[in-house]
Amino acid sequence: MSKVWNYFAGPCMLPVEVMKKAQEEFCDFEGAGIGIVEMSHRSAEFTKVAQDAEALLRELLNVPSNYKILFEQGGGRGQFAAIPLNLMPEGGHADYFVTGHWSRCAWKECNERYGEAILHECSEQDENGQYFIDYSKMKVTEGSSYAYLCLNETVNGIEVFDIPDTGDVPLIVDMSSDIMTRPIDVSKFGAIIFGLQKNVGPAGMTITIVREDLLGHARKYTPSVLDWSVLAKFESMFNTPCTFSWYMGGLNFKWIKSLGGVTELEKRNIEKSKMLYDYIDSTDFYISKVVPKDRSRVNVVFTLKDESLNDEFIKTAKAKGLIGIKGHKVLGGMRASIYNAMPIEGVKVLVEYMKEFAANHK
Amino acid sequence: MSKVWNYFAGPCMLPVEVMKKAQEEFCDFEGAGIGIVEMSHRSAEFTKVAQDAEALLRELLNVPSNYKILFEQGGGRGQFAAIPLNLMPEGGHADYFVTGHWSRCAWKECNERYGEAILHECSEQDENGQYFIDYSKMKVTEGSSYAYLCLNETVNGIEVFDIPDTGDVPLIVDMSSDIMTRPIDVSKFGAIIFGLQKNVGPAGMTITIVREDLLGHARKYTPSVLDWSVLAKFESMFNTPCTFSWYMGGLNFKWIKSLGGVTELEKRNIEKSKMLYDYIDSTDFYISKVVPKDRSRVNVVFTLKDESLNDEFIKTAKAKGLIGIKGHKVLGGMRASIYNAMPIEGVKVLVEYMKEFAANHK
Repeated sequence: MSKVWNYFAGPCMLPVEVMKKAQEEFCDFEGAGIGIVEMSHRSAEFTKVAQDAEALLRELLNVPSNYKILFEQGGGRGQFAAIPLNLMPEGGHADYFVTGHWSRCAWKECNERYGEAILHECSEQDENGQYFIDYSKMKVTEGSSYAYLCLNETVNGIEVFDIPDTGDVPLIVDMSSDIMTRPIDVSKFGAIIFGLQKNVGPAGMTITIVREDLLGHARKYTPSVLDWSVLAKFESMFNTPCTFSWYMGGLNFKWIKSLGGVTELEKRNIEKSKMLYDYIDSTDFYISKVVPKDRSRVNVVFTLKDESLNDEFIKTAKAKGLIGIKGHKVLGGMRASIYNAMPIEGVKVLVEYMKEFAANHK
Repeated sequence: MSKVWNYFAGPCMLPVEVMKKAQEEFCDFEGAGIGIVEMSHRSAEFTKVAQDAEALLRELLNVPSNYKILFEQGGGRGQFAAIPLNLMPEGGHADYFVTGHWSRCAWKECNERYGEAILHECSEQDENGQYFIDYSKMKVTEGSSYAYLCLNETVNGIEVFDIPDTGDVPLIVDMSSDIMTRPIDVSKFGAIIFGLQKNVGPAGMTITIVREDLLGHARKYTPSVLDWSVLAKFESMFNTPCTFSWYMGGLNFKWIKSLGGVTELEKRNIEKSKMLYDYIDSTDFYISKVVPKDRSRVNVVFTLKDESLNDEFIKTAKAKGLIGIKGHKVLGGMRASIYNAMPIEGVKVLVEYMKEFAANHK
């Protein structure tokens, strides 16, 4: 196949330059004679790779010095357990601001296994059937251990741009799909968690950026690998980390820096998503079910007005080299994920295809 | 550097053919136009990769049909928690047959966090100061939930070749460093766990082969990602797995099959380790602190009689392209890891170097 455009939601497209570099040195990392995946995580070479990646992440996100950066295994799902295990004492409670699929999963993990997770339904439908975020619902309750929020709901295509003020209650956010896509003020959060497999690198690693005073309170039965204070103490080398993801994350951070950092990426992501939403709004062939102000810049979710055309839309796209546009199974419809690695050309190609398909099915 | 011999204990050398294949198709997997790390774990292509790898593992180890194979994140350390969380009820106890560093770590994780882990010290020193496994200590206690054993102690260079009979008490073994290095009778075990980063593939994935009747008993507060029954229910796709490790594991399994399976690898591993131990025993310049019958075939641990030469031994080796032979920090000395991927040539080169170094330091 000559050229493929990859709109998978994650694992997903990675920057072409990053992929090429990793391929080039796959069997011989910087002249060491062996590949990065063949190196001990405690070797001098890998230690440098790991430390450089962390330093660059700290620089790009402007992470304050009183925050630790932890490189973990277990995925976002593992962190859904780690959050209450590390932050909520037995008998405590926490507030979950739910705006879609993944924040509901986080709520469920806590509520079924660790204690009272108060569900605040923060996504509602307006009179046109479009979803919007009801920020007025984002209120913490008395004595809450933390408030939880997913800043970008990958499945629903909803993104939180206004960070609620939770006062002294630490706000814990999942940024798996929008990390590095826009500047954020880390100091507003108790912890930021994200899986690497969308905007950073291959699946297999999760990063937690956590304020130091929140460490050291884990429940007794917290597995060591999910105990943030254990990971902090051993600088994420308590056990063997997913070295390849860590390494590729580092390559990705270098790529981001070379482009001008997250501010530049935010500009590009605004431009890319605007192009796609503008087209969707200009036709009644396609529908966005999210109000403009809350639309995700990275996961553009839409449906065809005539849903009987869904299969044909996907099949025809694939034949043209446009893959991964089927929506998540819980929601159906379509989803184009256009993370940092997706160039504007990839969005233009998609819009052209959508126009053509619509024209052919008038 | 022209040629490097890599004796790291893990992550470590992977088969040359496997590394080359992964490099070749890194940016374009089987003509899909994108790399395997860029594919959704739910895509048809990756699903096939995952299922083929599992089927091949089942075939190579002759895994009975009443055993599930789970592909996990969290490492061996994560499984140290998962074992009691899945198998030991509150207030229960288990037997730990400790022969070295890693089984002691497993014992500690259970004992400090989940309940009574009875420590059976099964490694002792004889009158010559050599360690041996005291199999007579491997006795289960009344009412034990399970017995735990590490079949190959990577740090200590001790390997268990006689599997103790634990009757109705499920025997749970860690085979992180000797999986696929010799045939085993899976039906003797309640569960077998292993990290991929020694004999299978890149770090970031752990596999648990578990008898079905042991599923479904996890404690309420077990994180979903460590609950074996959750992983079994979702066929290891409850959350995004470490797709690259899974894929490379599959390549490795194909490579093993092409060589003739684990029986053939066992022959090679016997030959390789014998060559190295025979030389060590033939000189008093180097010392093995393990009795011959209990020596690991994959981690050859030895010391220099004159330990003041340690640094020079390591430095000179590195200058000749022999890397990763420094022993684990808890034990000191030297360790040459010669897993499946290490050809006999790599052992010959090491023996030659050891001879030369000894001759130069008479």
